[in-house]
Amino acid sequence: MMSRHFESAPGLNEERDPATQGYVFNQTMLRIKDPEVTLDFYTRILGMTLVRKLDFPEMNFSLFFLAALDPEELNNWSQDTAERTVQTFGRPALLELTYNWGSEKDADLTYHNGNDEPKGFGHIGFSVPNLDTACQRFDELGVSFVKRPEDGKMNDIAFIRDPDGYWIEIFEPGRLPKGLEKHLG
Amino acid sequence: MMSRHFESAPGLNEERDPATQGYVFNQTMLRIKDPEVTLDFYTRILGMTLVRKLDFPEMNFSLFFLAALDPEELNNWSQDTAERTVQTFGRPALLELTYNWGSEKDADLTYHNGNDEPKGFGHIGFSVPNLDTACQRFDELGVSFVKRPEDGKMNDIAFIRDPDGYWIEIFEPGRLPKGLEKHLG
Repeated sequence: MMSRHFESAPGLNEERDPATQGYVFNQTMLRIKDPEVTLDFYTRILGMTLVRKLDFPEMNFSLFFLAALDPEELNNWSQDTAERTVQTFGRPALLELTYNWGSEKDADLTYHNGNDEPKGFGHIGFSVPNLDTACQRFDELGVSFVKRPEDGKMNDIAFIRDPDGYWIEIFEPGRLPKGLEKHLG
Repeated sequence: MMSRHFESAPGLNEERDPATQGYVFNQTMLRIKDPEVTLDFYTRILGMTLVRKLDFPEMNFSLFFLAALDPEELNNWSQDTAERTVQTFGRPALLELTYNWGSEKDADLTYHNGNDEPKGFGHIGFSVPNLDTACQRFDELGVSFVKRPEDGKMNDIAFIRDPDGYWIEIFEPGRLPKGLEKHLG
């Protein structure tokens, strides 16, 4: 029988528990300081769509759920908020942004990007149709780069920063097999 | 014209830049201490599939790319590693785990989950077909809970911990609209 995994590694569970059927990797949550700045970034620079916003007045925070949608996918989403809540939490690849009310006015508040010490979370990543075109546009739009493609050894990936300093990896899938060749074992 | 967003909020960019067409929210990267323990967790407890592993011997690290796949999706993946690299970096909702060789032997090394200070990244999240069934199974398997559904105010979500202490939210989409009702503005 063929493995349900495509690579071998210690620790892999081979017989999938049927109880996990239908599990969806739905969301990645990042805290943000100022939604006006960050929503501009993710919708203008990265083209994402705000599919659901949840305001929790009794706890003074809001959640913003963003998806990278093709235009035709817009029609798959319900205008009904309850239905759209179900859709939001049921589909893969949502970016969830948590905003604690008033944080944009707190001069001392910055969030931790996970790459400075103490390390943990590293980055989110977007694939783009053309890495060079994407990076040229990011430059024109004044986006902050951690690493341009030409920096360092890995010349087929870039890293940019979102407004809170979280890292976003940018890559063009078709370029990666050749680009990785010289580094892989 | 209907907005391309489904909610209103300051900062939203309305006219999507065509240059962002085809951008895919592909990955979320977390550093892990011990791949044997963590791959067991994500493949056994959450049912994920290892679709690509990249070893970088010159830099002493490995990357593991995991997807929550339905069984029939297994057939969509290529057995050719170069092709599968392209697939891995092109599709949404990959969990990327970074392993720096030898970290499992470093008694002092722990990774930062972003919820203790300094805060930043919050969690990843999985939707499940049935929250109660899922949580009962997690309990039976000895999974560590941050919050069970019955704890606190939000009784339709749970949080568990992965082996490095990263938080994973667990929810059943169909239960959320009713569960959120009493908290929303």
